[in-house]
Amino acid sequence: MSSNRGIAYMEPGVVEVQDIDYPTFELQDGPGVNPANVGRKLPHAAILKVVTTNICGSDQHMVRGRTTAPPNLILGHEITGEVVETGPDVEFIKIGDIVSVPFNISCGRCRNCKERKTGICLNVNPDRPGSAYGYVDMGGWVGGQAEYALVPYADWNLLRFPDKDQAMEKILDLTMLSDIFPTGYHGAVSAGVGVGSTVYIAGAGPVGLAAAASAQLLGAAAVIVGDLNQDRLAQARSFGCETVDVSLGDPRDQIEQILGVPEVDCGVDAVGFEARGHGAGSGTEAPATVLNSLMGITAAGGALGIPGLYVTGDPGGVDEAAQKGSLSLDLGTGWAKSLSFTTGQCPVMKYNRELMMAILHDRVQIAKAVNATPISLDEAPEAYREFDSGVARKYVIDPNGMLSSDRK
Amino acid sequence: MSSNRGIAYMEPGVVEVQDIDYPTFELQDGPGVNPANVGRKLPHAAILKVVTTNICGSDQHMVRGRTTAPPNLILGHEITGEVVETGPDVEFIKIGDIVSVPFNISCGRCRNCKERKTGICLNVNPDRPGSAYGYVDMGGWVGGQAEYALVPYADWNLLRFPDKDQAMEKILDLTMLSDIFPTGYHGAVSAGVGVGSTVYIAGAGPVGLAAAASAQLLGAAAVIVGDLNQDRLAQARSFGCETVDVSLGDPRDQIEQILGVPEVDCGVDAVGFEARGHGAGSGTEAPATVLNSLMGITAAGGALGIPGLYVTGDPGGVDEAAQKGSLSLDLGTGWAKSLSFTTGQCPVMKYNRELMMAILHDRVQIAKAVNATPISLDEAPEAYREFDSGVARKYVIDPNGMLSSDRK
Amino acid sequence: MSSNRGIAYMEPGVVEVQDIDYPTFELQDGPGVNPANVGRKLPHAAILKVVTTNICGSDQHMVRGRTTAPPNLILGHEITGEVVETGPDVEFIKIGDIVSVPFNISCGRCRNCKERKTGICLNVNPDRPGSAYGYVDMGGWVGGQAEYALVPYADWNLLRFPDKDQAMEKILDLTMLSDIFPTGYHGAVSAGVGVGSTVYIAGAGPVGLAAAASAQLLGAAAVIVGDLNQDRLAQARSFGCETVDVSLGDPRDQIEQILGVPEVDCGVDAVGFEARGHGAGSGTEAPATVLNSLMGITAAGGALGIPGLYVTGDPGGVDEAAQKGSLSLDLGTGWAKSLSFTTGQCPVMKYNRELMMAILHDRVQIAKAVNATPISLDEAPEAYREFDSGVARKYVIDPNGMLSSDRK
Amino acid sequence: MSSNRGIAYMEPGVVEVQDIDYPTFELQDGPGVNPANVGRKLPHAAILKVVTTNICGSDQHMVRGRTTAPPNLILGHEITGEVVETGPDVEFIKIGDIVSVPFNISCGRCRNCKERKTGICLNVNPDRPGSAYGYVDMGGWVGGQAEYALVPYADWNLLRFPDKDQAMEKILDLTMLSDIFPTGYHGAVSAGVGVGSTVYIAGAGPVGLAAAASAQLLGAAAVIVGDLNQDRLAQARSFGCETVDVSLGDPRDQIEQILGVPEVDCGVDAVGFEARGHGAGSGTEAPATVLNSLMGITAAGGALGIPGLYVTGDPGGVDEAAQKGSLSLDLGTGWAKSLSFTTGQCPVMKYNRELMMAILHDRVQIAKAVNATPISLDEAPEAYREFDSGVARKYVIDPNGMLSSDRK
Repeated sequence: MSSNRGIAYMEPGVVEVQDIDYPTFELQDGPGVNPANVGRKLPHAAILKVVTTNICGSDQHMVRGRTTAPPNLILGHEITGEVVETGPDVEFIKIGDIVSVPFNISCGRCRNCKERKTGICLNVNPDRPGSAYGYVDMGGWVGGQAEYALVPYADWNLLRFPDKDQAMEKILDLTMLSDIFPTGYHGAVSAGVGVGSTVYIAGAGPVGLAAAASAQLLGAAAVIVGDLNQDRLAQARSFGCETVDVSLGDPRDQIEQILGVPEVDCGVDAVGFEARGHGAGSGTEAPATVLNSLMGITAAGGALGIPGLYVTGDPGGVDEAAQKGSLSLDLGTGWAKSLSFTTGQCPVMKYNRELMMAILHDRVQIAKAVNATPISLDEAPEAYREFDSGVARKYVIDPNGMLSSDRK
Repeated sequence: MSSNRGIAYMEPGVVEVQDIDYPTFELQDGPGVNPANVGRKLPHAAILKVVTTNICGSDQHMVRGRTTAPPNLILGHEITGEVVETGPDVEFIKIGDIVSVPFNISCGRCRNCKERKTGICLNVNPDRPGSAYGYVDMGGWVGGQAEYALVPYADWNLLRFPDKDQAMEKILDLTMLSDIFPTGYHGAVSAGVGVGSTVYIAGAGPVGLAAAASAQLLGAAAVIVGDLNQDRLAQARSFGCETVDVSLGDPRDQIEQILGVPEVDCGVDAVGFEARGHGAGSGTEAPATVLNSLMGITAAGGALGIPGLYVTGDPGGVDEAAQKGSLSLDLGTGWAKSLSFTTGQCPVMKYNRELMMAILHDRVQIAKAVNATPISLDEAPEAYREFDSGVARKYVIDPNGMLSSDRK
Repeated sequence: MSSNRGIAYMEPGVVEVQDIDYPTFELQDGPGVNPANVGRKLPHAAILKVVTTNICGSDQHMVRGRTTAPPNLILGHEITGEVVETGPDVEFIKIGDIVSVPFNISCGRCRNCKERKTGICLNVNPDRPGSAYGYVDMGGWVGGQAEYALVPYADWNLLRFPDKDQAMEKILDLTMLSDIFPTGYHGAVSAGVGVGSTVYIAGAGPVGLAAAASAQLLGAAAVIVGDLNQDRLAQARSFGCETVDVSLGDPRDQIEQILGVPEVDCGVDAVGFEARGHGAGSGTEAPATVLNSLMGITAAGGALGIPGLYVTGDPGGVDEAAQKGSLSLDLGTGWAKSLSFTTGQCPVMKYNRELMMAILHDRVQIAKAVNATPISLDEAPEAYREFDSGVARKYVIDPNGMLSSDRK
Repeated sequence: MSSNRGIAYMEPGVVEVQDIDYPTFELQDGPGVNPANVGRKLPHAAILKVVTTNICGSDQHMVRGRTTAPPNLILGHEITGEVVETGPDVEFIKIGDIVSVPFNISCGRCRNCKERKTGICLNVNPDRPGSAYGYVDMGGWVGGQAEYALVPYADWNLLRFPDKDQAMEKILDLTMLSDIFPTGYHGAVSAGVGVGSTVYIAGAGPVGLAAAASAQLLGAAAVIVGDLNQDRLAQARSFGCETVDVSLGDPRDQIEQILGVPEVDCGVDAVGFEARGHGAGSGTEAPATVLNSLMGITAAGGALGIPGLYVTGDPGGVDEAAQKGSLSLDLGTGWAKSLSFTTGQCPVMKYNRELMMAILHDRVQIAKAVNATPISLDEAPEAYREFDSGVARKYVIDPNGMLSSDRK
């Protein structure tokens, strides 16, 4: 039981499976661990045997070399697992529980946690509010693309599934609760999506598709997804979305063909800082494209939900402004339309229980919407490459072979 | 009764008092009137004898030549008056009522009005959602810096004061209900100000001071106002605000001296697109300064209310980007802190009744906070010049000599 | 065009089709018209050729003799029509528009209308805030179970369908926008229903079924409907609801069988003051039964939406308390669980546009959920009797034979 | 350090100071301790040297014999203290911190705590959601009217004051954060009080006065407090409230004299189940009086906040219905006015930080509003008697003589 294996970032474009340490109830030094966190005691933690752990688009930012992530950083912040050990301070979570782990690490004891703002917990990252597993500049919590993973503040952080067998049956849906389903949902909610809304979602990657499925669940009248990638657009259409091919130009005209008006009530940016131009410029990175486009097509009085990541430093940015996270935004347009904007990490804990209920009662098929594709730990490096090439898949790593045998 | 006089914009830096037409129940052609609005029937309108009409900072944008306003445009969107005539469709407003006019013109019949979004009414401006009296590109409704003014959709737009004598006694407070008090209040509300909040307001002009008074009324623990102008900072201190002199550099350090931490819960931009640099660069226009500064000093999880005007076209902008309303914003910083942003005209009607109640029950001294200074119509051109020079005053024009005689 | 026919209440248990006056732009005296409303000028009104007008459970209160409704009162407050004439003050609604009429009559000019509280408009009913067509003690506005009907403040009150042909195709769904769909939706919304909620709805009449369909549209995980009437319970099951037979006892045990716990997050009272006992007492009227039961089965922290009507005077009440609208409520239980309660008429205008969008984009099948059953005007008296007997149908009167010919 | 003394309930009308056990990190058996809680390990707890602990009106329900509280129950749920010892799982709270204890005990780990509903925590009371220190049927947590007290889940429950000296200077204000200030504030907030509201508060005891001070802090235009007790009404007037003497009859007429209309926007019930009749019946207990009166005087569209306690069992109730917590409520009246109602314990943690900020920045004088009166532990039995007699005081016990020496 004391062995462990995980996925390590090595250099731009390269990840590998490594033997790594089995978790202990103290934060050990290692690649990317903030010195102030080294030696931190974790009596409140639980150790999970990882049932599933997904590859996320935000992992790609590191793997593409767009961050300062160090070699040998263990990746993975989308974790679902079975509790195999608990620290002495854990009171309600029990060994054997199948649980979902919010990608945000939070303490459950600071002002922000008490206000449900778990994406900006004040006590887990010495550098700034907010943290995540397996991510650069997030304090140094070990990633979960591994056989075993540790979750601090387990009673607070973990969402227990009510029934183990039911959980394993729906595991490809439930695995999305750790990040992309709540993140897409947060994008939709903060864009003001409700019953009868018309919605445009920029980006048909997994978060965009999750936002689209969320908008449907929230009762949206029409959900339109835009992207350059034909496979991903086809994926969006597979569960009832309308689509816009942004390689053909600004979405405005295509939206008008769909809705009869060139505007939507709600806009979601599921792309972030690595955005590319629309129309003729669609091969080139143009970080403000998506937000400026959304300001153009969101009707006066509308709102933009911005779950897509914008960073404070991007060594690969197209120009000096982009490298420090500055964007040239048409704020005059947004102001004239009285738009509002919500940015930041999704506070997963605010939403994961209600989304779990929707999954368990068959109100949403999120695995199907994002095309969940289970793989083994050893297949992960190849999956990283395929995901980077733009396949319309969400890879779900099954590091301990716990999913249905027919896959293997 | 059929004569009228008003303040006209003539050329950059010049306004003058002119004889103008007495209002009629049909929108007449004139400087800046949208052709699609010419001849519009207004049986739902009321004609007011103007009791007070204030000079606004946003009038200054036109008078400084930062817009395409045509000569002879009659200015003025802050109007309080006595009803002297009503159209045949006016049912509840009566001749003799003393009323406040929201600066937003709205129809009370479209989707947005029904949703309380009167700042973006769909039926009053052929160019875009939203309108105002006496303003360029707003449809051509005649301004109210005049002896008489017309208000369309009077039953919907007008806020009647319950008692005439009481209204005249508090008229210097009540006159602020047409724009700056609700506008400042909207900035505070949309920045999330509530009981116990710490608040930083950029700009100590009348809107900034109104935002500060509003934040106090909402129960804020600490209200800090920043500006370059010493007189305006002194005015802010006169009613209990803390102040920051931004000519000394970024507000961060001064905020830390006041609060013990270098951050606030809530940020309000009461400056807008004509912002100047902080610190050594404080003489130069730098349109993104205020918003970038606010992203720096607002704590993670906070919100920015942005009542300050950002335009889609500014012929006097410092560079090409500024001329089309684009700003270089540090969105990476904002995103890392999960900030949200609310822009746009204040929907006055959403707030004016409750603020009137606060005034009538002596819960707020808004006239004192903004240093309301009554003048005659003929003094207005000089007041425009003084206001432009940065005096800490809010000029209240009394075009019919209805205010207490001791002033005259 | 100047003839008209409508359904009149005659005496307990009896309604009849009568020749009635064609509407005029002035409120005429007649049965139940408040003297203060007689002669009221209505230049803001539109006259509709009624496309559909539904029989409502609240009409039954009058027809059963549980109110002081006078003979010859023309019934009907659920109206959808084609505009055939408009008063001189109507600016945006046009002849030929197909429109939905909110059952609440409202002026669009008072404080409450401006705050979206159109169910308690201050200007339409001299007796108290709030009004409705064809209803006792509501000011005397003529009912719409007729060939032609008048709607005051037409620009404000009417919801225009964007396309005439599309509207006629979906007319059995759209006709529910005038009352029961928003009313059921309001019940669900005010009970706190959202994504993942578990919901119990007391009453499987049309409003209860509409609340159930609304809860599904809002993303509820599980929707449970309780009633004594087997046909209505079968109707609820037909679109995916779970059901509870309250003749078998308090819903608690049956809920536990369905959910695994004996509690729900949200409770909706779609029954009102004519409630009957549960279990052995289910034959007897017991007005507090539903609310006390809901307090028992709604989990701590939950909310109760109460669209079911409670009256201030009920001549047929079971005892003196009931006759003046007093109920013996287990408030101690509710308080211990920190429950909240929302009562009152649904403000239809707050919801009808978004629900229309959901219908037009095929996100909800409300006609099917409530078993919409079209009939002619002459069939209405028989339909009143059948509805009173508890059939699981929502009767939609087609007074001008405008629905698809295959029915006729 | 191992000695301790506290206030014990002995029999109706009698409390006494007793030697009691010094707290340990395990819940011991004792009077009123739920067997399921006996022996519960508390490594997450902190032990406080009590700085102040207040006598509360809800303690009186027990002392008057209106509950099943057993003899020797140690009273007290309003606790402010200095941390003297912490369990091994306490990470952020430190020895020496001056802290406020929310009267609700909560775990910080269950669904309700995560949703900020700490008044109905699922893990602290085996009988039902929600708990409190020193209270009957609340699980058996020892009361804090003592020299030393234990607080479980200390990192979650405790609010640390930023500066020790400042805290001791304002301790008579800060001591109100444990219960009555947030409770009154919750009543105001849930009654919809905001800027410009008119508010009626039933009851001028400490919670009513705290609600009144809260309403002022929230920007209410007019705050009216009603009671039978002249001293308490004088106390309300001392900080700017208007008052109504309910011994003179229903508040309606007196409200009309104050406001010009016989209605308010918001109603707060700060009385609860031991309400007495108004007017001629004002000597007699009449539990539904306050709520029925509030439904009469709250305007259509308003809300009622109900912080006043209603119980599920009252052995001293005036009749059988009252003894099981049933009230005869005029729900028909409430429904006709579309009122909403919020009941239950205040979730103190939702509000205490922001109210602390308001106190520390001198935005509110809550100690003065409720007439805070410091006493020693030995004076407490006499203070219980005086408080029961209706004196307009809030007694603050200083069990360790830590308040300024000039009192002693």
